[in-house]
This record gives sequence, structure tokens and C-alpha cells, in this order.
Amino acid sequence: MEETQENIQFQLTDELLENVQQLIINQDNKQLKVLLNEFHYADIAEILDEINFEEAIYIIKLLDSETTSDILTELDEDVREKILKNLSAKEIAEEVEELDTDDAADIIAELPEARQEAVISQIEDEEHKAEIQELLAYDEDTAGGLMAKELVKVYGTWTVAGCIRRIRGQAKDVTRVHSIYVVNKEEKLIGRLSLKDLITAKSEEKIADIAKDNVDYVNVKDDAEDVARVMAKYDLEAIPVVDDELTLLGRITIDDIVDVLKEEADKDYQLAAGITQDVDSDDSIIELTRARLPWLFLGLIGGIGAFIIMEGFQESFNQYAVLFFFTPLIAAMAGNVGVQSSAIIVQGLANDDVKGSVNSRLIKEMLLAALNGVILAIFLFVFVWAYNGEMDKALAISVSLVAVIIIAGLIGTFVPLFLNKRGIDPAIATGPFITTSNDILGILLYFWIAKLILGI
Amino acid sequence: MEETQENIQFQLTDELLENVQQLIINQDNKQLKVLLNEFHYADIAEILDEINFEEAIYIIKLLDSETTSDILTELDEDVREKILKNLSAKEIAEEVEELDTDDAADIIAELPEARQEAVISQIEDEEHKAEIQELLAYDEDTAGGLMAKELVKVYGTWTVAGCIRRIRGQAKDVTRVHSIYVVNKEEKLIGRLSLKDLITAKSEEKIADIAKDNVDYVNVKDDAEDVARVMAKYDLEAIPVVDDELTLLGRITIDDIVDVLKEEADKDYQLAAGITQDVDSDDSIIELTRARLPWLFLGLIGGIGAFIIMEGFQESFNQYAVLFFFTPLIAAMAGNVGVQSSAIIVQGLANDDVKGSVNSRLIKEMLLAALNGVILAIFLFVFVWAYNGEMDKALAISVSLVAVIIIAGLIGTFVPLFLNKRGIDPAIATGPFITTSNDILGILLYFWIAKLILGI
Repeated sequence: MEETQENIQFQLTDELLENVQQLIINQDNKQLKVLLNEFHYADIAEILDEINFEEAIYIIKLLDSETTSDILTELDEDVREKILKNLSAKEIAEEVEELDTDDAADIIAELPEARQEAVISQIEDEEHKAEIQELLAYDEDTAGGLMAKELVKVYGTWTVAGCIRRIRGQAKDVTRVHSIYVVNKEEKLIGRLSLKDLITAKSEEKIADIAKDNVDYVNVKDDAEDVARVMAKYDLEAIPVVDDELTLLGRITIDDIVDVLKEEADKDYQLAAGITQDVDSDDSIIELTRARLPWLFLGLIGGIGAFIIMEGFQESFNQYAVLFFFTPLIAAMAGNVGVQSSAIIVQGLANDDVKGSVNSRLIKEMLLAALNGVILAIFLFVFVWAYNGEMDKALAISVSLVAVIIIAGLIGTFVPLFLNKRGIDPAIATGPFITTSNDILGILLYFWIAKLILGI
Repeated sequence: MEETQENIQFQLTDELLENVQQLIINQDNKQLKVLLNEFHYADIAEILDEINFEEAIYIIKLLDSETTSDILTELDEDVREKILKNLSAKEIAEEVEELDTDDAADIIAELPEARQEAVISQIEDEEHKAEIQELLAYDEDTAGGLMAKELVKVYGTWTVAGCIRRIRGQAKDVTRVHSIYVVNKEEKLIGRLSLKDLITAKSEEKIADIAKDNVDYVNVKDDAEDVARVMAKYDLEAIPVVDDELTLLGRITIDDIVDVLKEEADKDYQLAAGITQDVDSDDSIIELTRARLPWLFLGLIGGIGAFIIMEGFQESFNQYAVLFFFTPLIAAMAGNVGVQSSAIIVQGLANDDVKGSVNSRLIKEMLLAALNGVILAIFLFVFVWAYNGEMDKALAISVSLVAVIIIAGLIGTFVPLFLNKRGIDPAIATGPFITTSNDILGILLYFWIAKLILGI
């Protein structure tokens, strides 16, 4: 069997896409199946994301539902939405029957309300149906929204041999057995053991005696991002989910957590860059405009604000035109410092390592900004003086720069901390938001201080 | 055993820290041990990150090496470095004996060269020592740098019963058994099976008959970030690592991949915000300055460039002072559009879904920027006209804005694609780099176009 091993790197080439499209045009189903069966379902999903919609539907209808159900879970959300629109409730129910309860519930939750009912009513396996309905009731941003009902559960009173016999049945429905959860007769979680523990134990031992009794768990209402953080921190591969009475309800596995962490990081990154969440480079121009234009509009308003401020100072600075030429520098520095300091705080909050008082954070940022500001200001002072020969202007510009940098740093530190305290995602405070407000404030401050120093 | 279950949320409070510090002052070792034993080692690491260095050393010397070795792996790098400096080679070797080979090698790799030798020579377990030495030879950014030697390996010729018997021995050394790897007599990877497969199989079956023969694997020289991407994409919890001859060398587990993904996301986020990688909010002012100042300096140079450009246009635009007041607006819009478009490309490259030709990307971005630009320009035109009453100036400013936005979008799209093609991390093209170059170019373009339209 040595030939079948494969290094896992998959390359989606133009040749491959053309090959797939040609086979569809030729309706060469046999060859198409042979070709696609070589690939992992996640790779087939990538192919479907790239070809046109009719071609994608053709492939979905061609392959068996065991494969297509997995493909569906990996598709881009907008491609999946279009494909599901073209499948009947019965066809969707067949796909859903193949999936674990968590993936099944996620797919059904994306359908319009009316279709959800229709699809659920077509699910034949009554137990699967009831479990999916239970999962649909949970908020998607909670542990309940992440968990699956598939798990291996044993009673503390069983012996190792009896347990192995019984879990043979349960394990068939569970893709990966991370842990075996031990419950008492009220179905409450009382312990956990690994398959390894089971395999290395003597067959007559009692489960209660070999189980670890300090099980970590999360509550079904816990926030999904908190669960992700906790599982990453403690290197957990699965965690049981319980209700307030400790009744075992489901389990969350690390692969879902990887997705949560990735989505969270992507969202924060996009917010920092001034893009409203959830677009990627393949989205349509209209979708991308909807994500980008609001932030640009904010920038435009800020720019108009800067214009009005500068116009207001025009009279006073009639003799000092040179000062106006430094406004882009002042605005850029205020923006950069603001983004730097807010990014550090936002990231610290995301990694849960911002501790201590707000005041000590602000004092630290003030010292840091002052240090950076003075270094930069000295450089600027020397340049302006050498270039322009007028020490008073050079002084006015440099001193303002230090003040602007300090204020920008403080705002960048304070705003995300403040938002976080109010329960608002601090990541919205990065990027254009901080840049724009710092731009305006920076320019205003700059002219004030310059006026003061130059005695106008 | 019901009382011992615990919801996994850990809160590092000031009270807890004071409590720990007081117990250290009182040298109340017994109480301190009782208190700390309640916590997960990752939580104890958080405590050590917050208290002062002498206190941290006190706790490390107090607890047994089984716990402290795990704590060491979770500490902030700078705290760990200080603590290791204070331990003898013998003490470090004792910690390292407790760890899996991958964590052990990571810790040793952080030591100065001279100490590495000393520590390795003190490791008593010869096999562990040899394995760590092997791992130290791999580059940390490769699959070899991530993998551990701990795995469960069986031969295809064994029976299920024989296999269970034999792996009882192996599994004791392996914290988590994800997969059992099947090798032939040349130690080459030929298949894989799960403990679940083993437990549900009949005891007289041959391993070769029940093993899955299409095993995914990575080469020991593969890039760590590629391995992370692949494991996240295919929802893998562990992957075997082989050499060019398919000899099984080790395995990589998902918990290490979660760390790689998090580090990568943090680094990209920081680069976008203009922070050189690897600082957090608790680092010293000097370290933070070193990470932030270079980018600010770049901004300063950009601002001086903008000043020189504006001064150059001063003569021509003597009658048009109002145009100068829009330079912060132009610079801000150029910067924002550049960051948006580069961020989308950088993220697309990181998620490996930027396909197709560079030209089609650029055409799309041009259309997108043109659409956004025209909408914003119409708004700006109406404002300037209404505010100022001069249509020609309003027109000059608005038309330039469209041109600036298009060029900024193209630069933001092209630069990361170009860097990526050259094998340079495209993330460095986001943030201050794009902002600064777009600021200068935008202002230059703005005055050129205004000059043309106003016929100066």
C-alpha cells in the first residue's frame, strides 16, 4: 500500500480547474468522480468555491451525500447559501443526516426560518432530529452553539470490560473519541477517562476507580470566545459542556475552536485595517464596497474637519505658511501612535493579559509616548532648523509633535480599555476610528501649541 | 467526587496575587502548596508572570519538577529566561526530563549555546537525551521544529490483540494517543489507525487489514506555517512527520498548531498596526520603543517628504491656499484605502485563497477603488462647492481624490502580491509602510492633478 501515501500539500491550479470544467462540459461523470475522489473534501470545497455556480451544483448532485455533506461544511458561506437554495428540503435533510449534530445544526441555522422547519421534518433519524433541534435553540456565540451531541458516555459503576463492550456501540457514531465522560445515574458529569486509560487498565476494574475525577468543563451558556481562549490556554482537545445542574449536554472539540480563533483573529485584523468584518478578496465589488466605504467615509469627514480647523487658523498664521505644510506629518504621527497603542491594548485584551489598573497603563503609555516623541522631535527640530533657518518655528513644530504623540498614545490606550469595560468589542477602536479622531485632534493641538510658542 | 468538578474559567485577581505574595513573605510553604495545587499549571504560569522575579523563583523551587516543568513551558519568554538563568544545569535537566521531547527541545533551544551542552549532558534518560538532540538539529520554523518524538507505532504484521498488549507499554510515555502509526520493517510509514478502530476490531485481526492506508503526512522540512494551515484546513488533530524516504520521525499535535496560528495572527496584526513583532503590553518601555519607534520614524520621513512636496507647490498655488487645507484629507484617504486593500490581500494570502492572475486582482481593485472614490468625491464636491462657492476648486479637489484613491488601492494590492512572489512576508507591506508611501504619493498626485485642472 506504499504508493497511496501522500504529502498533504494541495495546490489549486488553473489546469486542475480547467480539467474539472472540461469534464463537466463533456458530462464525463465517471472520469470526474475518479478525479475528485483523489481529493480531500476540503480541497473539493476549494474547487467549488472557484468554479461557477452551475458547475458546483453539477458536482454536488454527482457525488454521494457522505462526501457532499462534508464539502458543504467547508464551502464559503455565500457559495453554500446559493447551493442550498437549489436543493430541495429532502435533499438537504439527506446531507444533514450524514453530518455530526454540530455541523448539521450550523447548516440548518443558515437557512431561512421557513425552510428550517421543512428540512427538519424530513430528517428520518428521530434521535438525530431531536439533537439538532436542541442545538438550534442555543445562541451561536455560546458553548451550546459550538458543541456536538456526539460523545462517549459511561457510568461509574461499569467495569472496564463492560465499558469497552458498551462503548463499541457508541463510538461508531463519534468521529473522534477524545475522552470518555463518566456520569452518575442522574446523568451528571462526575469524571473522565481516556481510551488510553481504558486500554491500559485491567478488565475487571471499576470505571469509577480509574476515572479522573477533576474534569474541566464549560457551561452551555459560556461565551464561545472564552471557551476558545480556555481550550487554547490549557491545550485541551475536547471539553464537556454541562448545564447549571452539571448534567452532561455535549462536547466541544478543538477543530471547532481553531475555526473560532481564526475567525476572531481575522475579524480583529480587518477592523484594524478599516474593513467591516466578513469579507474576503473573492467577494463581489458591491460586498467589498459595503465593507470598506463606511470607514472611508469616516476618514472623509475627518479630513473635512481638518480642513475646517486649518481654515480657522488661516488668519493667525498668515506669516507662517510653512506650518501648514507640516499638517500631514502631524496627522500621520498622531494616527500611527494611536494605532500602535490601541493595537497593543486590543491584542492584550484578546489574549486576556491586560491586568492592573487603567491609570498605570495610561502612565506607562504616557512615558513611552514621551520618550518616542522626544526622540522624533529632536530629529524634526534639527531638520526644520537646518532647512528653514528659523529656530522659533522649528521649536513650535517639534514641541507640538511631542504633545500630539503623547495625547494620541493616551487616546489609543484609553479608548479600547473604556470600550472593553462597557462590554463593547475594543477592536472597533483600532484602525480608521483612532486614526481619524487622532488626525483632527492632533492638528488642532498642533496649531494651538504653535500659536502659544510663537506668541501669535 | 462531585464537589471537585470545576468550571474552567480562571480569574487572576489582585487578591489572589496578594495572597500568594503574603504566603511567600510568611514562608508558609504548606499553605502555598495547598493554594497552588488548586490551579492548572497554565494558571500558575500566569501568576508567576505577574509577581516579581524572586517570588517566582521561590515558587519554582517549592513545587515538584513534574508541575514546574509544565509551568516553565507556559511562562512568558522573558520571565522563563530569567528563571532558567537562576537554575543550575542539573536543575534544568530535571525539569526537561519531565517534558515531552518537543517542549524539552524548545526550552533547551532558548538557552545560550554553552549552557545547552551542560544541560543536555545532565539528562539521565539516554533515549530522551538522544531524541532531544535530534530535535534540536531542526530549524524551529519547520515541521521538524514542531514535532515530538512521542508516538505510538506498530507493525502491520501484528494482530489487534498483540498490538493492544504492546502499545500498553508505549502509550504510557505518550500524553495523548491521537493515532497509532503503522510502519513496515524499514520503519517506513504505511498506514494509521485510531484507538477507536483498535477497540472496535476483533482481537485476532491483522493490523495491516484494519489500518487506513492513505495517511496524510508532512515532510520534516516543511514550513511550520504551512503545516499549521494544512492541519487547520483538514481538521487534523495530529499528523505524522517523515523524511524524504517516508521514515517515520515524529508527530505534530494540534495544540502546538494552535500556538503557531495564534503567533502568526498576532504578528500580522502587530505589523498592520506598525509594531515590530513580539511585544506585549507588559513589556518594558525600552522594548516597546524598540518595536514602535522604527515605524514612527518611517512616518516622520514621510511627513517631511510631504512637507517638501507642498513647499515645492507653494509658488504655483499662491492664490489657492484652500487646496493646502485638504492635504490631510487626501493623505488620510490614500492611507486608509491602501491599508484596506493590502489587508485583504495579506489575509487572503495567509488563508491561501488568493488565486488567479495579478492582473485580474488589480483590475478588480481599480474598479472597486473607482466606485468608492466616485461616491466619496461627489460628497466632497458638494461640500466644497457649497462651502466655498468655487466650482473649479471643488472639481480639482474631487477629481484628484478619485485618482488618489485608485492609485492607493492599486499600490495596496500590488505591493503585498509582489512581496509574496519574492518570498518576503507580505504582512510587512501593511500599516505604516503602505500608509506612508501612499501619503506622499497621494499628495504629489493631488497637486499635479489640481494644477492640470485649474490650468496653473
